[in-house]
Amino acid sequence: MNTVELILKKRRGGCLTREELHYLIDGYCNETIPDYQMSAWCMAVCFQGMTPEESRDLTEIMAASGEQADLSLIPGPKVDKHSTGGVGDKTSLVIGPLVAAAGVPVCKMSGRGLGHTGGTIDKMESIPGLRTDLSPERLMDQVRRIGLGIAGQTLGMVPADKRLYALRDVTGTVDSAPLIAASIMSKKLAGGADAIVLDVKVGDGAFLKTIDEARRLAQLMVEIGHGAGRKTLALLTTMDQPLGWAVGNALEIREAIDTLRGKGPTDLLQVSLALGGRMVYLAGIAQTPEAGEALLREKLEQGEGLRRLEMMIEAQGGDVQALHDTALLPQAAVRREVRSSVSGYVRAIRTEDVGRIAMRLGAGRMVKEDRIDPAVGLLLYKKIGDSVAVGDIIGEIHGENSAAVEQAAADLQASLTIQSEACAPLPIVIDEISH
Amino acid sequence: MNTVELILKKRRGGCLTREELHYLIDGYCNETIPDYQMSAWCMAVCFQGMTPEESRDLTEIMAASGEQADLSLIPGPKVDKHSTGGVGDKTSLVIGPLVAAAGVPVCKMSGRGLGHTGGTIDKMESIPGLRTDLSPERLMDQVRRIGLGIAGQTLGMVPADKRLYALRDVTGTVDSAPLIAASIMSKKLAGGADAIVLDVKVGDGAFLKTIDEARRLAQLMVEIGHGAGRKTLALLTTMDQPLGWAVGNALEIREAIDTLRGKGPTDLLQVSLALGGRMVYLAGIAQTPEAGEALLREKLEQGEGLRRLEMMIEAQGGDVQALHDTALLPQAAVRREVRSSVSGYVRAIRTEDVGRIAMRLGAGRMVKEDRIDPAVGLLLYKKIGDSVAVGDIIGEIHGENSAAVEQAAADLQASLTIQSEACAPLPIVIDEISH
Repeated sequence: MNTVELILKKRRGGCLTREELHYLIDGYCNETIPDYQMSAWCMAVCFQGMTPEESRDLTEIMAASGEQADLSLIPGPKVDKHSTGGVGDKTSLVIGPLVAAAGVPVCKMSGRGLGHTGGTIDKMESIPGLRTDLSPERLMDQVRRIGLGIAGQTLGMVPADKRLYALRDVTGTVDSAPLIAASIMSKKLAGGADAIVLDVKVGDGAFLKTIDEARRLAQLMVEIGHGAGRKTLALLTTMDQPLGWAVGNALEIREAIDTLRGKGPTDLLQVSLALGGRMVYLAGIAQTPEAGEALLREKLEQGEGLRRLEMMIEAQGGDVQALHDTALLPQAAVRREVRSSVSGYVRAIRTEDVGRIAMRLGAGRMVKEDRIDPAVGLLLYKKIGDSVAVGDIIGEIHGENSAAVEQAAADLQASLTIQSEACAPLPIVIDEISH
Repeated sequence: MNTVELILKKRRGGCLTREELHYLIDGYCNETIPDYQMSAWCMAVCFQGMTPEESRDLTEIMAASGEQADLSLIPGPKVDKHSTGGVGDKTSLVIGPLVAAAGVPVCKMSGRGLGHTGGTIDKMESIPGLRTDLSPERLMDQVRRIGLGIAGQTLGMVPADKRLYALRDVTGTVDSAPLIAASIMSKKLAGGADAIVLDVKVGDGAFLKTIDEARRLAQLMVEIGHGAGRKTLALLTTMDQPLGWAVGNALEIREAIDTLRGKGPTDLLQVSLALGGRMVYLAGIAQTPEAGEALLREKLEQGEGLRRLEMMIEAQGGDVQALHDTALLPQAAVRREVRSSVSGYVRAIRTEDVGRIAMRLGAGRMVKEDRIDPAVGLLLYKKIGDSVAVGDIIGEIHGENSAAVEQAAADLQASLTIQSEACAPLPIVIDEISH
């Protein structure tokens, strides 16, 4: 096979066979195909797309490019969950414990955050002492014992995606549905779960800005999962406002704990129950997604979710006391309330800007090498449709020094569009995509 | 400026400013922009194209990326000619001497051939002793003395094109009108001529297969040349049959000599006079292209073209005797006539195949490192519309050994489509494009 011919085939709108995709991905991984050919091929894919069969083949070939988790030693059906990322998205830390409490083992390998959206692993590491660098054996053993474990992705999984993602990041080829779908789904397939629930975020704070493109990506990923023999469904959820109130690592951990105590923001609980209920449903524990939600709500009210989170923190070496007294979580040096200078109704929230405010405070990474400050971040109490009066507390900034905090406070205020006419709140769950 | 942003701008159909193109080309030349970003940008250009202004800016920036010839020491207007390449294209060796004899200095820097079309420099080097590696000073001095010099491109000219062309060649991004136009015209601009005549070949044996795409490329190049202050025009000429009879280096030299003696193939003479007549016209020596053609025909009949070729061969160290006795040119070990096994009229000639037959005999390069055998090649006497009878000599093969010659003879026969109905000959010059 000839790499230039394969690039030209895609450039001309052709469909690559499984063997041809194998040649490309294997060659790229073993460095016989150089970056400059792969980036040209990626750009051709950006323009010409891929057929569903091509997407599935690419995903499966990438999933098989390295180690693959074997979850067969964990009894029962295993269900994984993935979010495409958004501002304030801490659902994994609410869902994992609840689903585990409902009897479905949760064995999750998560990534770190880059840009204005944080990663679950970064958030977990704000719990003093907690380790996320578990070996596959230790993670599996933990899940067998307590039904729940969340660890960082091991280096050996899906090397094709690691190389390809790094290349796409610097060649303007990130934004392509089949390449995004293959990147996400290859990691899910290699993760070994029997069923997959996808949270596809759409809106200003997500990388997918329109419902149409989110729906297309969700359909593609559901088809890929189904084609690979995994039950897969997706929810489209809004990212036109941050999820919950907290944006920032320790602050989000505190909010997840509060939510499992029944005192969290309602939008976070709603999304968590919707996703978790479907995980329980796909695992066969509930007859319908709604019955799954009801079961999780029951576990929440019985405090079993919180108990399961405590077991995970303990198993992974974290300070369990921080669960009961969140003052033991990292605390920022400077804290300041943000009060509204105007009155009216919240019409819009520039959600990506809110994420950037938290990133500039030190809660996120601009480049991979950046260190995260677990203590800093912000709280934004207002949602679209809420009324505000002059002097109302609309949020809170946690920062390293007063200059940064003052700037963030002004920026947070500016991220809200407030108008005099009342407006409707946002639908939180927009759509459901299944096979 | 940020390279990824520039790639994305082009990917989204935007138009890059002159400063942005400068940043890209300079960065690529000084290796701060890596191959993998440049190839992604090239692929985006393949899909999104460029505006005429972008094309002109890119061309001028590339032309300025290295040394530029200063022809001001040569008196009078200097005119250059470029062919996009075809099978049997030896027009430079006919035109150069005739135009020089008409009083227009010809100072030509030419390339080597790759693939099924040969380069002028390769052809010239089949003359025993002749050197093409002239320094710019020596070339200029020669043109001042005898009005004619053809040398290989010096390494320092248009380094941006050398790097970019090598990259496009291995990333499926050769075939893009703005990139082709910039590649060709940047070399012409750096070559320093005041006026440029382009021979844009179209048909099976050219890289441009349709008249529409050839016309678009010709228009683009004419606009670029004009925008850069050079009088530029283009002829579209057919490549649905080889030009002349000979394909192969020494054989083509012999044919060029024969043509300057008035004994060459009529299609070669027609294209040479059409192009050369326009060079003389653009130089202001003739009032019209037709008057230019008439002047060149006069020079030919007076033997002044042949005399000028002799002067060039002598000046560049070649064996002048080979001009008078072409048996002194390299001779192939095996020679064989090809006779028709069918009768009828030539309906079509698979011209690219004819080029490949010559290449397989050793007349061309598959990869840059291949060595050329100057002696080998073929003659094809038949043109579209010609009648053939069983047993007619349709061509001649010159090869290294009988196996290669037998194969080539069979292939040459197979490259002709012969039908019983008469058909019209091809128009040789298809169209003229001027500003």
